[in-house]
Amino acid sequence: MKLKRILRFGLPKGSLQEATIEKMAKAGYNISVSSRSYIPYVDDKEMEIRMIRAQEISRYVEHGYLDCGITGYDWIQENGSHVHEVGEFQFSKVTRQPARWVLAVPEHSPIKSVKDLRGKRIATEVVNLTKKYLRKHNVKAEVEFSWGATEVKAHELVDAIVEITETGSSLRANNLRIVDTLLYSTPRLIANHASWKEPWKRQKIQTLALLLRGALEAEAKVGLKMNIAQKNLQNLLQTLPALRNPTVSNLSLKGWVAVETIIDEHIVRELIPALKAAGAEGIIEYPLNKVVY
Amino acid sequence: MKLKRILRFGLPKGSLQEATIEKMAKAGYNISVSSRSYIPYVDDKEMEIRMIRAQEISRYVEHGYLDCGITGYDWIQENGSHVHEVGEFQFSKVTRQPARWVLAVPEHSPIKSVKDLRGKRIATEVVNLTKKYLRKHNVKAEVEFSWGATEVKAHELVDAIVEITETGSSLRANNLRIVDTLLYSTPRLIANHASWKEPWKRQKIQTLALLLRGALEAEAKVGLKMNIAQKNLQNLLQTLPALRNPTVSNLSLKGWVAVETIIDEHIVRELIPALKAAGAEGIIEYPLNKVVY
Amino acid sequence: MKLKRILRFGLPKGSLQEATIEKMAKAGYNISVSSRSYIPYVDDKEMEIRMIRAQEISRYVEHGYLDCGITGYDWIQENGSHVHEVGEFQFSKVTRQPARWVLAVPEHSPIKSVKDLRGKRIATEVVNLTKKYLRKHNVKAEVEFSWGATEVKAHELVDAIVEITETGSSLRANNLRIVDTLLYSTPRLIANHASWKEPWKRQKIQTLALLLRGALEAEAKVGLKMNIAQKNLQNLLQTLPALRNPTVSNLSLKGWVAVETIIDEHIVRELIPALKAAGAEGIIEYPLNKVVY
Amino acid sequence: MKLKRILRFGLPKGSLQEATIEKMAKAGYNISVSSRSYIPYVDDKEMEIRMIRAQEISRYVEHGYLDCGITGYDWIQENGSHVHEVGEFQFSKVTRQPARWVLAVPEHSPIKSVKDLRGKRIATEVVNLTKKYLRKHNVKAEVEFSWGATEVKAHELVDAIVEITETGSSLRANNLRIVDTLLYSTPRLIANHASWKEPWKRQKIQTLALLLRGALEAEAKVGLKMNIAQKNLQNLLQTLPALRNPTVSNLSLKGWVAVETIIDEHIVRELIPALKAAGAEGIIEYPLNKVVY
Amino acid sequence: MKLKRILRFGLPKGSLQEATIEKMAKAGYNISVSSRSYIPYVDDKEMEIRMIRAQEISRYVEHGYLDCGITGYDWIQENGSHVHEVGEFQFSKVTRQPARWVLAVPEHSPIKSVKDLRGKRIATEVVNLTKKYLRKHNVKAEVEFSWGATEVKAHELVDAIVEITETGSSLRANNLRIVDTLLYSTPRLIANHASWKEPWKRQKIQTLALLLRGALEAEAKVGLKMNIAQKNLQNLLQTLPALRNPTVSNLSLKGWVAVETIIDEHIVRELIPALKAAGAEGIIEYPLNKVVY
Amino acid sequence: MKLKRILRFGLPKGSLQEATIEKMAKAGYNISVSSRSYIPYVDDKEMEIRMIRAQEISRYVEHGYLDCGITGYDWIQENGSHVHEVGEFQFSKVTRQPARWVLAVPEHSPIKSVKDLRGKRIATEVVNLTKKYLRKHNVKAEVEFSWGATEVKAHELVDAIVEITETGSSLRANNLRIVDTLLYSTPRLIANHASWKEPWKRQKIQTLALLLRGALEAEAKVGLKMNIAQKNLQNLLQTLPALRNPTVSNLSLKGWVAVETIIDEHIVRELIPALKAAGAEGIIEYPLNKVVY
Repeated sequence: MKLKRILRFGLPKGSLQEATIEKMAKAGYNISVSSRSYIPYVDDKEMEIRMIRAQEISRYVEHGYLDCGITGYDWIQENGSHVHEVGEFQFSKVTRQPARWVLAVPEHSPIKSVKDLRGKRIATEVVNLTKKYLRKHNVKAEVEFSWGATEVKAHELVDAIVEITETGSSLRANNLRIVDTLLYSTPRLIANHASWKEPWKRQKIQTLALLLRGALEAEAKVGLKMNIAQKNLQNLLQTLPALRNPTVSNLSLKGWVAVETIIDEHIVRELIPALKAAGAEGIIEYPLNKVVY
Repeated sequence: MKLKRILRFGLPKGSLQEATIEKMAKAGYNISVSSRSYIPYVDDKEMEIRMIRAQEISRYVEHGYLDCGITGYDWIQENGSHVHEVGEFQFSKVTRQPARWVLAVPEHSPIKSVKDLRGKRIATEVVNLTKKYLRKHNVKAEVEFSWGATEVKAHELVDAIVEITETGSSLRANNLRIVDTLLYSTPRLIANHASWKEPWKRQKIQTLALLLRGALEAEAKVGLKMNIAQKNLQNLLQTLPALRNPTVSNLSLKGWVAVETIIDEHIVRELIPALKAAGAEGIIEYPLNKVVY
Repeated sequence: MKLKRILRFGLPKGSLQEATIEKMAKAGYNISVSSRSYIPYVDDKEMEIRMIRAQEISRYVEHGYLDCGITGYDWIQENGSHVHEVGEFQFSKVTRQPARWVLAVPEHSPIKSVKDLRGKRIATEVVNLTKKYLRKHNVKAEVEFSWGATEVKAHELVDAIVEITETGSSLRANNLRIVDTLLYSTPRLIANHASWKEPWKRQKIQTLALLLRGALEAEAKVGLKMNIAQKNLQNLLQTLPALRNPTVSNLSLKGWVAVETIIDEHIVRELIPALKAAGAEGIIEYPLNKVVY
Repeated sequence: MKLKRILRFGLPKGSLQEATIEKMAKAGYNISVSSRSYIPYVDDKEMEIRMIRAQEISRYVEHGYLDCGITGYDWIQENGSHVHEVGEFQFSKVTRQPARWVLAVPEHSPIKSVKDLRGKRIATEVVNLTKKYLRKHNVKAEVEFSWGATEVKAHELVDAIVEITETGSSLRANNLRIVDTLLYSTPRLIANHASWKEPWKRQKIQTLALLLRGALEAEAKVGLKMNIAQKNLQNLLQTLPALRNPTVSNLSLKGWVAVETIIDEHIVRELIPALKAAGAEGIIEYPLNKVVY
Repeated sequence: MKLKRILRFGLPKGSLQEATIEKMAKAGYNISVSSRSYIPYVDDKEMEIRMIRAQEISRYVEHGYLDCGITGYDWIQENGSHVHEVGEFQFSKVTRQPARWVLAVPEHSPIKSVKDLRGKRIATEVVNLTKKYLRKHNVKAEVEFSWGATEVKAHELVDAIVEITETGSSLRANNLRIVDTLLYSTPRLIANHASWKEPWKRQKIQTLALLLRGALEAEAKVGLKMNIAQKNLQNLLQTLPALRNPTVSNLSLKGWVAVETIIDEHIVRELIPALKAAGAEGIIEYPLNKVVY
Repeated sequence: MKLKRILRFGLPKGSLQEATIEKMAKAGYNISVSSRSYIPYVDDKEMEIRMIRAQEISRYVEHGYLDCGITGYDWIQENGSHVHEVGEFQFSKVTRQPARWVLAVPEHSPIKSVKDLRGKRIATEVVNLTKKYLRKHNVKAEVEFSWGATEVKAHELVDAIVEITETGSSLRANNLRIVDTLLYSTPRLIANHASWKEPWKRQKIQTLALLLRGALEAEAKVGLKMNIAQKNLQNLLQTLPALRNPTVSNLSLKGWVAVETIIDEHIVRELIPALKAAGAEGIIEYPLNKVVY
């Protein structure tokens, strides 16, 4: 009798949950979370999903309760977890900037650098990261755990905070000034060291990483097709190196070819006007599900 | 003077409503339901939509108030409606399992099979299906109509229930055990017998069925393109029969070809790693709106 | 030192807001509106977005507080704003009908034409448009500004209303009868006259218009691919002029070709059955992001 | 050893649920319904609450699964349940009119009386009540069970409906005309016959009825206090018989008395101006929790 | 034959709607607004309610479409309506401050007084009030109608705004500074001049005003009872003049009396400790529905 | 010049927030929290409110950032804060049971007592309380901080949890068994030691405590009035000691008296039937705002 092989996979509950499940679906793994059960359904009989707070995933991967998981680099560091990092992924589409933990103070605070924190009180959700940062700069200060709404505390309850931000707009709205950046953080796929040594599990995790990366790549890219007169083709390809390695095929209309390629979505705004200028016609942009090189 | 030709089409109101309208949009029929009017808008002047409870559609199709409609196989059977079944459709994507009506009892109930129901009380929304099932097994029991929340009743108000389930997780959450399955049910497109005999209506219904099927097929499939060296092509096609009947075209880069095909979305997870292993490069997966063979 | 170049762009706040931001994203401009800040984020460092009521945008474009903006033709006319109209866009997908401002009265009102308004009271949000309409028809009547819920007023508070409608269903639900149409209105991209004369701003606005139009075109179109026997190709193309200028490429299967083209989505319902009848196989419809001719 | 005595009490789930729980709280029984458990909490250790559809309560009281319950007179009749009716209660405050089941048809229908139903189709949720009504009038017609949205069906799917209404405004909004009233219905407290014979249960049910009635009475009444000169008192009491049996006490101010009584809230509008006219001063109205005569 | 007498009463739709309906219920008039009908139900057969924007009520009262209505003093002035003002009412409980229309500018704006507005642009919802204010101060400036979100405009689209505020906190949150106050506004009950001359209507409006005032008074007051030794009574009453005209009655316990009175709720915080200090025991505070002097 | 005296008062943000604000309003302090500002409005110019997580309040009271605050006994203990405890308050009405922190394990776990925890892992939000509990029982085990959803972890991620519960129903729903209780917790009003020594602050805090207690007392009590024949009075008072110290006054009807008193709301269910049996008539129960002995 053969035992059923299972990969235990931890996904972050809470603010990242919806985005993560959507990305997993794009990668090909359909997950549905029910309010009735704490074990989500996934359409892969060799996989079991657990929804766990991002703050705790690395701890349970390290201890082997989970084979692998997706969590932020920040919490892996905060927990000091010994895990294998399989890869880095970027989920957020709009800003395309990694989140970062920053030291912030009220706009008119006399604190201008980490040195000015000597003897002060700092509130943060990442107590260990903050203590390590202070040690590195040889500064003694009190660090207290904040259960939330940290930004509001900077004005009267403590002298400074260490808080996460993406664009800084929430800090500005609270009249806070960024003094320093402690850590940049992006989502990571991590694995338990023992699980990573098992060939079946490692391969399954690698496939997952391949497909997830393919889905994320596809979000930042689009397919592009256009028609162009044969005589203009060479010029087009030379002046627009962004069209790397295109597929060129003949059209039924003599002297014309179809050109097709994959490009970064964020250059479309500049590229399409340039393509028109170079003689391209019937330009079509279409969406992609996955891009795997 | 020519009379305006109209097809009256019933769609299920309630829990299936949103999914049905979304599938119809994918098929090419844009419907918008207004809270102000009980007659939804559809962008086809030869069609009139009525939103009716799934339980009642087959009855109104049978009587000719509707020319056709979409409803579950379960309610056609429960109502004993004489209608023409045009086709079967599967709407739910996540689980890809048909719904089924099951006989369920509390986990520790002494009832182990239909025979143990003799003299017992059963609550259900499908009174006729349940009575027919009991007759088939030659068991006499009392069947009472349940207005809802049937699962809760199994523990104290009745001895057993007949209830619908997809994955069984809601029954398990209520500590109920499945004893038997009475009926598997999927959505059906049904037509009134007289309407089906009118050529214009039959053709309109068939077109609708064709497009709806095309849209549903497309949900379970994706397009796949990749580049491969000419010399590896034969090997690729032989080892991967899933790539049936692909389009192969020459690339501008000598010795390389582009391969394009349509495959089932649920094999992508296995296929992409295999394609990479077989030498494919620049693998692109893209979404489809309709697939009509 | 070079000054940073900025284009100030006004988008309509309120009922059109979500649709506009979605269309902008399709055009390639990702905007995110935060509840914390009245300045939305846009991933283009040369652009600044302002969310302003559709009623007011043309006024601020005229005065130069904004370089350009998207608003309805109705409000440009109501405000009598002197602005450069860059182009017309149609956002609504379902009905594909432009909105229109109509004169409406209770169903059983004696008012049958504009002439019958003499000496009556009319409530409307577009006081100037209504007064201009009355002047044109040489009718003297009182026009009062309505702060909302105008439809309800027609029954007792005033004699007639001038109100916006798309399908007329809301008017019918209020038992109102349309007497006349004053104005058809569609969204417009408008520019300040001075901004339009600056080459850098004009080009940036034109690129925006090109991409927005490409995205809107793509919403009403789909890509279509199919395989057909070489011998049937000519017949297919002749009988189906909708397949204009297709790409035809050879398949690996001898004697068969692949045909690919872009068509209007609203003819798919008629086209696909016809394609099947003409011998096409493996018909695939896929979505588009942009179509630029 | 003494067994724990328990009264099983069924409350209507759904549209009446919130109102019923609020009235029970006013009667002194605090109930809290949790989404986690189908057994609500009640702060009376001798009572167990079950939330059950109003349509089904009388059935389970009759069979003894429940000792007593609150449900509508309509469903007791529809189910033909043999139960003991403990009392009638009126929950709705605003309209103070009982609900009624009416026969309704489209405004311009030729059906003017029950006699015109001969051979017609009627949709209703109360199939038994409707059949009984037809038998009483010696009319043969088809009655079919409606799963909901019955009002909409009257216009095309059936010839008439039997539907519940309070003020008739929903019927009017659907352009329906009331032909006849089949039944007036109010909430009833009912008991299982055997439970009613047990002294402990009967007394517990009677106490519950007493307190619930006290709470409902209190909703329709208010306390009223005022000061009046001794010399005007007799006149006040004679001209205002609504002030029945007041408490009269002396004030510290010589020659003045305080008058206090309980009156129906709906006469306050007429009474207070009359009291002022009769010389009352410092009139105070205060709320009541319970009124038990 | 006697015609049915009807009083047409306009209530403000929108942000004040819920509060107004609640106050009317406290006054004894139960109103229920249905989403199905634009005519609310009221349990007074001689009254008809219309929900109309606060901005428009005075206009329709002036023209006689409504006999009376509740609206703000601001909109009566803005519209310049000739109506009879029956009385002033204060609805808001928390802050007990009237709303006011203020002239506001960005914190660092050079505008310090109305004189600095010369030649500037002002955005506001109350164009007439603002123009009148400017005329009074002999200042020429441009005033434009703002459709909403006026606060945001002050920073870049105009030079100043005239906006409504209660505590000023929303202005502060937008970094705006108040320069001057144009108008304080409270809710008013107004009547059409002709309606006010009809005795039946005037009396009905006066009764309504009496009861509404009684209900509003009761919100700001509470009943207070306490026991005190006879010997301490005189001292208590002298030192606490807030206990005006109390009811004093003898207790069964010899030498003790019960004291009862009505006081302003906002002095309870100071009064209760003082009462305890003066020897009062068993102090009870209870709520009131109406207080009519 | 006299400085403005201010009391800084911390209230718990989050799940207890609404209840706390409601109780404060009953005590006479109207607070309104705005989404625009982190400083709530309170209608007492000598008080400033801060909304802070219950977990953190005792820390900020200890350090003097707040003069006083309301928080749970559990978090005072967990933080080991040195603060002055002014009083204990019970907020929850329905169950009237204090919350408690319990040690819980899966139903079928071998862990039966604290001794069985040796060498195990425990997840909890109260790490310090749990460690102290283990030390007291001389048990070595690993305690890890849980960021939430602790109940779910007990089944696979850890061996036991320490979690808060009121009725235990949420634990039962998760199939967990309570092994031991670590701590009972109720809300406390706490003060900073230095603030408590300042006479003005101490008096202000004591008044607040007096009024808050008066409001909470009033929630659990009701006023009761009834009429009874003079001859039955003595018997009534003797047999019903719950009617302690009632006010007895003469009625206008000779031989009858009115009896009035305050009683615990939870005995009303038993008392009212007994009062009727003892001859009481016209029994009235009315609500109270405050009860101060």
